[in-house]
This record gives sequence, C-alpha cells and structure tokens, in this order.
Amino acid sequence: MTIQQIASYAAGQWIAPGAGARSIKSAITGEVIASAGNNALDVEAMLHHARTVGGPALRAMTFHQRAKMLKALAQYIGEHKQALYDLSFNTGATQSDGMIDIDGGIGTMFVFASKGRRDMPDGHVYVDGEPESFTKTGNFMGQHICTPLQGVAVHINAFNFPVWGMLEKLAPTFLAGVPAIVKPATATCYLTEACVRLMLQSGILPDGALQFVAGGLGDMLERLTYQDVVSFTGSADTAHMLRSNDHLLRNSVRFMAEQDSLNASILGPDAAPGTPEFDLFVKEVHREMTAKAGQKCTAIRRIIAPEAQVPALIEALSDRLGKTLIGDPRSEATRMGALVSTAQRADVLEKAALIGTEAERVFGDPNAFTVEGADAVKGAFLTPMLFHCAYPDAAQRVHDTEAFGPVSTIMGYRDLGHAIDLVNRGGGSLVASVITHDPSVAREVAMGAAAHHGRLYFNNRDSMKGSTGHGSPLPHLVHGGPGRAGGGEEMGGVRGVMHYMQRTAIQGSPDILTGITGQWVPGAKEITAPAHPFTRTYGELSIGETLNTAPRTVTLDDIEHFAHFTGDTFYAHMDDDAAKRNPFFPGRVAHGYLLLSFAAGLFVEPNEGPVLANTGLDTLRFMKPVQAGDAIKVRLTVKKKTQRTGEYGEVKWHVTLTNQDDDTVAEYELLTMNAY
Amino acid sequence: MTIQQIASYAAGQWIAPGAGARSIKSAITGEVIASAGNNALDVEAMLHHARTVGGPALRAMTFHQRAKMLKALAQYIGEHKQALYDLSFNTGATQSDGMIDIDGGIGTMFVFASKGRRDMPDGHVYVDGEPESFTKTGNFMGQHICTPLQGVAVHINAFNFPVWGMLEKLAPTFLAGVPAIVKPATATCYLTEACVRLMLQSGILPDGALQFVAGGLGDMLERLTYQDVVSFTGSADTAHMLRSNDHLLRNSVRFMAEQDSLNASILGPDAAPGTPEFDLFVKEVHREMTAKAGQKCTAIRRIIAPEAQVPALIEALSDRLGKTLIGDPRSEATRMGALVSTAQRADVLEKAALIGTEAERVFGDPNAFTVEGADAVKGAFLTPMLFHCAYPDAAQRVHDTEAFGPVSTIMGYRDLGHAIDLVNRGGGSLVASVITHDPSVAREVAMGAAAHHGRLYFNNRDSMKGSTGHGSPLPHLVHGGPGRAGGGEEMGGVRGVMHYMQRTAIQGSPDILTGITGQWVPGAKEITAPAHPFTRTYGELSIGETLNTAPRTVTLDDIEHFAHFTGDTFYAHMDDDAAKRNPFFPGRVAHGYLLLSFAAGLFVEPNEGPVLANTGLDTLRFMKPVQAGDAIKVRLTVKKKTQRTGEYGEVKWHVTLTNQDDDTVAEYELLTMNAY
Repeated sequence: MTIQQIASYAAGQWIAPGAGARSIKSAITGEVIASAGNNALDVEAMLHHARTVGGPALRAMTFHQRAKMLKALAQYIGEHKQALYDLSFNTGATQSDGMIDIDGGIGTMFVFASKGRRDMPDGHVYVDGEPESFTKTGNFMGQHICTPLQGVAVHINAFNFPVWGMLEKLAPTFLAGVPAIVKPATATCYLTEACVRLMLQSGILPDGALQFVAGGLGDMLERLTYQDVVSFTGSADTAHMLRSNDHLLRNSVRFMAEQDSLNASILGPDAAPGTPEFDLFVKEVHREMTAKAGQKCTAIRRIIAPEAQVPALIEALSDRLGKTLIGDPRSEATRMGALVSTAQRADVLEKAALIGTEAERVFGDPNAFTVEGADAVKGAFLTPMLFHCAYPDAAQRVHDTEAFGPVSTIMGYRDLGHAIDLVNRGGGSLVASVITHDPSVAREVAMGAAAHHGRLYFNNRDSMKGSTGHGSPLPHLVHGGPGRAGGGEEMGGVRGVMHYMQRTAIQGSPDILTGITGQWVPGAKEITAPAHPFTRTYGELSIGETLNTAPRTVTLDDIEHFAHFTGDTFYAHMDDDAAKRNPFFPGRVAHGYLLLSFAAGLFVEPNEGPVLANTGLDTLRFMKPVQAGDAIKVRLTVKKKTQRTGEYGEVKWHVTLTNQDDDTVAEYELLTMNAY
Repeated sequence: MTIQQIASYAAGQWIAPGAGARSIKSAITGEVIASAGNNALDVEAMLHHARTVGGPALRAMTFHQRAKMLKALAQYIGEHKQALYDLSFNTGATQSDGMIDIDGGIGTMFVFASKGRRDMPDGHVYVDGEPESFTKTGNFMGQHICTPLQGVAVHINAFNFPVWGMLEKLAPTFLAGVPAIVKPATATCYLTEACVRLMLQSGILPDGALQFVAGGLGDMLERLTYQDVVSFTGSADTAHMLRSNDHLLRNSVRFMAEQDSLNASILGPDAAPGTPEFDLFVKEVHREMTAKAGQKCTAIRRIIAPEAQVPALIEALSDRLGKTLIGDPRSEATRMGALVSTAQRADVLEKAALIGTEAERVFGDPNAFTVEGADAVKGAFLTPMLFHCAYPDAAQRVHDTEAFGPVSTIMGYRDLGHAIDLVNRGGGSLVASVITHDPSVAREVAMGAAAHHGRLYFNNRDSMKGSTGHGSPLPHLVHGGPGRAGGGEEMGGVRGVMHYMQRTAIQGSPDILTGITGQWVPGAKEITAPAHPFTRTYGELSIGETLNTAPRTVTLDDIEHFAHFTGDTFYAHMDDDAAKRNPFFPGRVAHGYLLLSFAAGLFVEPNEGPVLANTGLDTLRFMKPVQAGDAIKVRLTVKKKTQRTGEYGEVKWHVTLTNQDDDTVAEYELLTMNAY
C-alpha cells in the first residue's frame, strides 16, 4: 500500500506535507495509509488571499447566484462520490455510515441551495423583518438588513464526519458570501482532502473561496479579526482552549462551537412493552449506539425509561446488540465497523471504566467479542457496551462522561418530572428524543427540557415511517445546543447563514431604505411609467413603478348581488341592524372579497401581455369598513422582483385601497409571475 | 446634605451598605451625596431566589401577561418619575439629558409591552418560523420554538444611563420570562436604586423577578450556569475581563457586551455648505458632542467629511460649540452639564491628550472655559473639544482611542471609498451616520460599511423632521455592534427577547407539534364540533376544530359573470387560446378572487353570531388552476387563537380549497375577530 501524502491548498497552491508529518493509520488494519501536516504554510498569505480575492468574488454574486453555485457543487460531488466511498472505509465506516457522511453532506448542500433560492433575495442585501415606522408621517423609518462579513470563515472540523462536517459548514458560509479555510481533524483528513480536490477541480468556485489545511493551523487564529468567524466541531476541551484564546476574546472574533454532549432518549410513560413505541425505542437506541460505531456527537448516551420497563428494555436491547455483526466495514454483512483509531478505542475504554464506577455493565465485554474479517486488536474494533445505572440521582459520571463510541447507560425514572430532571442533568445537549404517542407528554417534556436542548425529537407510531432518526441533524433545523453542547448553533436554513453575516439596523427616509434594500418601502418615490405596468415585461418594470386607478363607487346593489352570487350572506353585509350591533361596523358593509375583486377589476389590464398569473397574496388587512356609496380606488406599486426561471420572474406588488376620503380601507401584497 | 445609604435588594430584603462602603459625589459640587457597597450579600441565596421563585412565577405567565406587566410597570414609573428627575441632576445631567434617560427608559418598556402583545403569542411557547416537512406524506415535521431560559439574567450596566440602561435590558428579559439581578455602575447607582424601589413598591412584579446590587457582585459570576445570561454595557477593558472569566467560558454561559466604540458620522459628497444636509450635519454632530456631555456609547467620535468641506465644517461646528452654555444642569439655560465625576474628567483629558498626538485641537481649551452657576473645578465640568486630524490614513489613535466625553475628531476624505475605509477603521462600531440626500451614496456606504456596524443612520432634508438622532438606540432596532463594540446585540423587538430564550428545533408528528406549540399544524387531528364553528364563541372553539363544506361547481357562466361584474376581464379568464399560450394555464381559468369569494360563500354561517369580522388573510397561494366544470370545496380549521381585548379575540383559520380530485387549488390563513 502506498502512503498518500495529504496536501494543503493555500492561496491557489497545493502544498505537500513537510518532514515529520504525522502518520495516519487505517482504522481496519492499523497500517499507515497517509501522512499529513508540517506543511510550510504561509498563514498570512492564506488569509490575505481569502479576504482580497475570495471574499470580493463571492460578495459580487447575489444570494441566488451563490445558491446555484452550491447546487452545481453538490451535483458535481454527487457525480464523483464513488472515489469518496472507497476512501471512507478506511475510517472504519461501513457503507451505510459512509452514506450518512457523503450523501448526507451532498444533501445538505442541496437543501441550502434550495433555501437560498426560496428564502433569500436575488440581490446582495438580505432584509430581516418588516420596516419599522417611528413617525406618523412615515418619513423616517427603520429596517434590519444582513450583509456578508468581509473576512474569512475558519472551519475546524471533527474526525467523525470528514465530508458532511465540511459541507454543512461550507454551504451556509458560501451562501452568505464568505470564503472559507477548512481544517479537518487529521485522523480522517485524507477523505476531506479528496472532497476538496473534487470541488476545486469542478471549477465552480471562484478563486480564493476555498482553502484547505491538512495538519495544524499555525498561528492563524492570532491573525483573525472581528470580520472573521471560527466555527468548531469537536470535544469540549479543544473548544475551551480555542474559545479562551485571548486574541479572539479581545477582538470579539465570532466563535461557534458544537461540542459532543450527553444526549438522552426518554421512553414515554405510555410506551410499555407491546406498544409500537417500545419497539421503536429499542430500534432507535440500537441504531444510535452502533451507527458510526457510536462516534456521533448526537448519539444516545443516556437511556431514560420508566423504572418498571428497565428490565424489559435491557433484555430487548441486549438481544438486538447481540445480533449486531461487527467486522470489516467493507463487507456488506457488517452492521458495525471500527472506531477511527486504536487511540480512540483506548479513550472510549477509559471513559467506559469511569461510567462503570456508577453503573453496571449489562451488555458487551471489550475483552471478549467477535470481529468478522478483520483483526480485532490491530483494527480499532470494539463491542457495543450497555450500562445500567441504578441510582441516577446520586450519579455524576453517567451524566457528564462521554465515551465517544458504542457506549450507553440505561437509567430508570419514577415519573415524567423525574425524567425531565435526569435528561437536563446532561447540562446542555445537542438533542434529546422522546418516544411517546401522547402529545401532553411531549408538551411537558418540551416545557421542562427545551431550554436545555438544541433539538427535541419526538417519534411514535404515527411518524415512524417518515422520521429521520434521533441522531440526524437536518439542514432545515438548527444543530447545536446550550451548555455542554457548546452554546452554538449551525444550519437551520437561513438561520445558519446569519452566522456569517452582520445584522445591521438601518434608519432613514423611505427613499434611502428603498435605495439600500432594492425593495420599495411605503412612502418612497412612486414612478409613473409611460404605459400600464401590466403591459411591461419583468425587465422593464422598475421598483417603485406605480399605477393609480380611477375610483369605483360601491353600491348597495353590488353588495346584494355579490352576496347572492357567491353565497356569502354573512349578516354584516345583509342586515343593517345586526351590523350596527357589531363593534366593528357602522351598518351594512361591503364584503372584503368584493373589495379585492373590484380592486382587481380596477387595476387589471385585460389584454394578453407579460403578466402570466396572479399566484398569491400576502398580509391582507382590512383597515376600515366600506359602505354603499363609498368610492374605492387602488394604488399598485412594484415592491420587489425575484427571478424564478429562464422565462419568468415573480413581481411582488404593494397594493393600497383607499376610499373617497383617502383613508386606507385595505392593504396587501400581490404576487404575479411576469415574463422577461 | 444627608448622605444617602444605597441599599441592595437581595432575596426579598433590602440590605444596607456595610462598613467601608464607597462614597459617591455630586457631579455638580463634588460633595459626597451617597454611599454604596460592601453589603453582606449572600450571592448564592440571591441566585437561588431568582431561580426557584422569580423564574417559575414569570414562566407561569404567558407572553401577553408579561407584556401587560411591562406596560403597567412603565405606567407606574411614569407616574412617579419626578423623584427620578430630581436625583438625575446630581449625575451631571441636564433636564433634557435626564429625559433621555428616564423617559427613554419608560418608552422602551412601552415598546416592548406593545411588541410582546403584537409579535408574540398569548402562550408559553414562541414559534420561530414555519413548520418544515421532510416527507411527502407530512407525517414527520420540524418546527423551531423558543422557551425561556431557566436561570437568571445578570445585568451589569454603565454609569451614563442609570435608568434607561436598566430598563432596556429588563424589558426583554422579563418579556422572555427570566428574572434579573441588576448591578449598575456605582457612580450613579442612587438613581437606579430609586427606580428599582419604584418598581418594587408598585407590587406589579412577582417575587424574585427583580433583585438589585449596589456595589460589587462578589463571586456571583463564578456561580452561573448555561441557563443564566450576563449582559454587560461599559468599557472594552471591563468587558474583556468579564468575557475571559474561565468559569463563564467553560460553562458556555451566555455573555453579551455592548462596548463604547469609535462611532463616526459621514458628511455625504452631495452635502456641500448651503444644502439642508450640511446644516443638519452640523446640528447632529453638535448634539452628539454635547448631549450627556458626550458620555454616550453612541456619540460621534469621528467626523468624516469631504476634504473640501473640512474648513467650513470646523468653522460651523466651532461657532455652534462656542454658543453652548456650560453650567449647573439644574438651570434651564444650561445646554451642557457636567461629566459624571472628576475622575471621569481626568480620564477624558488623558485620552484627549493621546488624540492630540495625531490631531490638532481646533476648538475648546480645557484650561479656559466658562461654567455658569457652578464651580468648574469642584464640579466635573469640561469644555467640548474638537480636533482636526490632517492625516487620518496614517493615524491610529483617532480611530481607537475613545475619550468618553465631549470630544470628537474631524478628518477629510478624498472619495466615498476612502470615507468607507475611514469609518471602518473604527474596528467595529455601534453606529455610523451618513448625511446624504442621494440613495446611491447610502447604498454604497451600506454595502461597504454595514458589516462593521450594528446600526447605520441616514438622514437628510426628507427625513430630518421625523428623525430620532444618530445617538439614540431604539427599542424596535438592534443596538450593539461587532468588534470594538463588543459583538453583542440588544433590543430590536423580539430579536432582543431571544437572548433570554433557547431556540430548540422540535421534530415529530403533526399532532405532537400541535400539542407542543398550541398551533394547529397541517396533518394534525381535525376535530368535528357539534355545530358550525361560526356559531361557537372564541372560548368554545378548539385548536384543530374543522369544517368541511359541500362542493360547488364553477361554471363558465360564473367566470363570465364575475368578470363583467368586477371588471376583471384578464385574458386568462376570458380567452381560451390566450390562456393556453400561457405557461400556467390549460385554457380559461376561474379568477382567484372568484374562488376566494365562493369559498367564503361555502364556509360562512350567515346569521348573527360570535364571528364579528374577517380582518385579513395571510399567505394565500393559488396552487392549481380551476376551470369551468371543476367543483371546489373548503376545509376550514382553527389554527391559532389570540386574545385581543376584553370582548373579543383573533382566530387564525387554516383554509384549504380542493377540487373534485382532492387536489389543493388554494391555501391561505384567514383572520377573524370572535366574541368571547
């Protein structure tokens, strides 16, 4: 076997490892397969390259352009993923573990690509929330915007997900418009490097957007500023060392940590043996103990069950664990592969021994287990181990000692309040799960334990077919947790992108806000076009372009007629006395839908043209009743434009209906699709 | 003059200062007016009281109940504010400075009360964003919720706003449902204590919600957990000391800092002398230099103007500064009062001397200025000082040395890019302002400088009448900034409440999510009531209560008739060939508003009853075209209920229109007001 030299990619150059680089061994055989580190990296040049080349190139793109870039990148990696699968086995991962890492990473990138297109604008400024008006005249307003940080993101990743761990951080970073320097854990950096090479060879990323460090970062952290971000995944000890860095603290450099935690799973009081929930619980716990050989930051470390169910649960889990084939991860029959290294195995055994001081081992003897097709000692193999803690209130280590491998401790609870106390003893976790069919159990756990968790996962007979698994962070949802879990937050759609942007409150006149955001704000200049806006193409329409219609008088006949035609004979429209008794109406009033319909009649240009369809309507509010004899007119203004496909884009119109006294009677936002 | 003993309020008891307490002097006369500190506080008992008494009581209230509590509190302080005004003068503040502090604080509380009612639910769980569906069948979903932290907020405040500084932190903390311990700067703690006494004597707050420390916190920080929050306002040095605390770092205790920064104001390239903007700029800079004698974290420290305008600007500013009457703040004629203490004055003079090494003093001689009605030496009086820095690119101290008093430095810029470079040299600021009438100037500054600022304030002739001032943080908008400004964020409406809550992703079946959030999620159980939901009062309606209507066939006559009645003869409804050419339609289709109107006809119960009005509609999307011959039917489900007044509440209904094939043709949320 040749020993692969894992290079770093710095300022556009691949730099081979230097003399004295660290050897990396196969998790299966213990043979040296690669070496990495001690490169002669010019750290300042890397930062400079990212800040002056990568950052400006990414910031010149719109959110939609970056989203399309992510999609192309995900597609490219997907087309070339076989090479990654092949390398993945050496980390001890089975085929199914490798898919979680590789396909999971690709899928995360696709989701961010889609979120970027759907939830972010086709521009350079992300608008956060609605404008705020401070004066009655509305001539001075406020609005929050988010713009990309002008520095670089340094991603320090854990060994257990060499591909997903990189891509889940890169996707929101790139979408924000920020370049990244990726530093994976050395133990599995050969797989990360292969994925980096794919991304670079794709030619999809602008120069300077992505750099890669195999080995140490040197003094890079000492050179960061408040425009940079450090995002770390790994152990609490390393996180503490990084977050205590005086330079980072003194300069308010953003630091996020996602640390391993003592995640728990609660078997609901309703989920007795014989229920679908009991079986589901056994299945979920077993999966979390054995997938990636338990080397997941979200794995279930504490199993919290009604005291009465503990014996049955130990039996069911032991039975399932006993049938789990441990062996060469390349074999299709293998259900659990190896830990990443023999050093990791030694660490797990040490931690398991600590847990053993407070809990009894009820399954798995590390000195007596079978490994198929590989050497149990040279390879980093280990049996799953289940402990039972009889006195969880008095215990400490079962709540704070994480054996980062196939190790979990079961403990009994007296009532749901006790279960909540125990789950919170983790001191802040990434995730807890509750297997229950009872929404009131779910509610009670959420109210008691949500403040201690980044994610709460509920599953039962109704949802088990569609459920995604206790241990799987999803790009749509935040991943991270308080306290021991590091206090950070990643992903969660646009929420995760915000970590790489600065939120800024802007204040000014409506024209100034419109100029900055590219979205028309009420009160800003109205532009009168030479023709009806419905006759103008998407490209021709300007932000602020406005149509003011003629008035139309609403008659009692109109109201009567509309009521009988539609069947909407609600008393407020039909019965003057009843309407007068109502706190909102001075007497019979026109239907809201009559007003909407007449408004469309007033502003629509009927002939075939660039407007293709009215696709929807947002935040309609009826503000003042309209009675027979009132005359309504419409103001229709282009608020926002968003490209959707090669043929058409979405136009959001701000619509105001006023009466003969110029009082606003209704306001809403209308959506149309318009041809280019 | 009697020397007031400033007590602390700990675990329900007022504790007087101990032997060796610190003396506090009047800013006007230098006489000792109060003493504080060295109390024998049982810090652990205070934390325990907050966590076990105050926290549970606040968490038992809904967001709306807490909002009403804030409103009552603000009203009570407002009714008793004269006592605060009287004390405020001793801090050196003029009447107008005191109003910024006291009325500003009360106003902030009112805004949070209103935001709590409007933007948060009348329940215990804040729902963040929309549910996420991961499966086609929708039987397993995700949703983000926020719940109150289960600890205590420790607020460490600055001397300059003894009332506002407390209330702007208390309002979001209480709204979140978290108890607080307030520790003001000792120099002005007598005013804060008076306000705390008002709040406690009002009887509005639950026991344990508010405690107060005059003097030091002892080892309180060493006793905090990840359920607690430290929120600090003050100097960078103190912030650094606090954030480096190993216990806080090791336990991921939330720490927010709002630090003084080198805020700048840019005179736009368009704002030459003679324009309204030039005069406005002079007025804003003058106000920021002299209000609170320049002791504002947002004050303008750097004045950035086109090189050509620098001489005119120095002249105009000097003229205005020269007319500023400095004196006893109790006098109505006084325009600028004293600094908080002679120690503060010494610090300002020291910093000004540093700035003087890079810039020339062009206005204000600290050894020769007039003070009306007070002793300039015994009182902490100081003249405003304006510096001019001729070489701002080469300078460092003018960009990083904050003289926290009436001191500012003017510097010239060559072009807008240069101005942006200079403003960003502040290394992260709370706020920068730009006085310009040109939206493209505003856009360029925003794109270049927003990432370095928490707030950007634009003003010009259009907005100056309604504008709120460069230096005024508003409760609606975030306050804080990156880098030197501390990297924190406060206020900003609900955004500021989030700092005291934990965001948690929850996953589960629609029934489970509905059970937790109290809001119906599509796919959750539908409840069939014994009567039409429009005949049932607000209180009788259950979440999930559903009406399924009979179908109605839409005919070509209906479409023709509706078109001519409303005037909406858009081609897609009238011309089969034209509609077929459109990428969305198979031929002539019914109007969207016809569908909405028919839907109302199908679900409305016409007789007088508890439904008072249809007040609006949200997120309407037309999903599939409806043609003549199609039959539509409606499903109407109670999604959410919100109490609004003593007589009625708002019901949000989830509405789905389906066709004869059960395909969804439209979906929206309907708002009604319903009598109790």
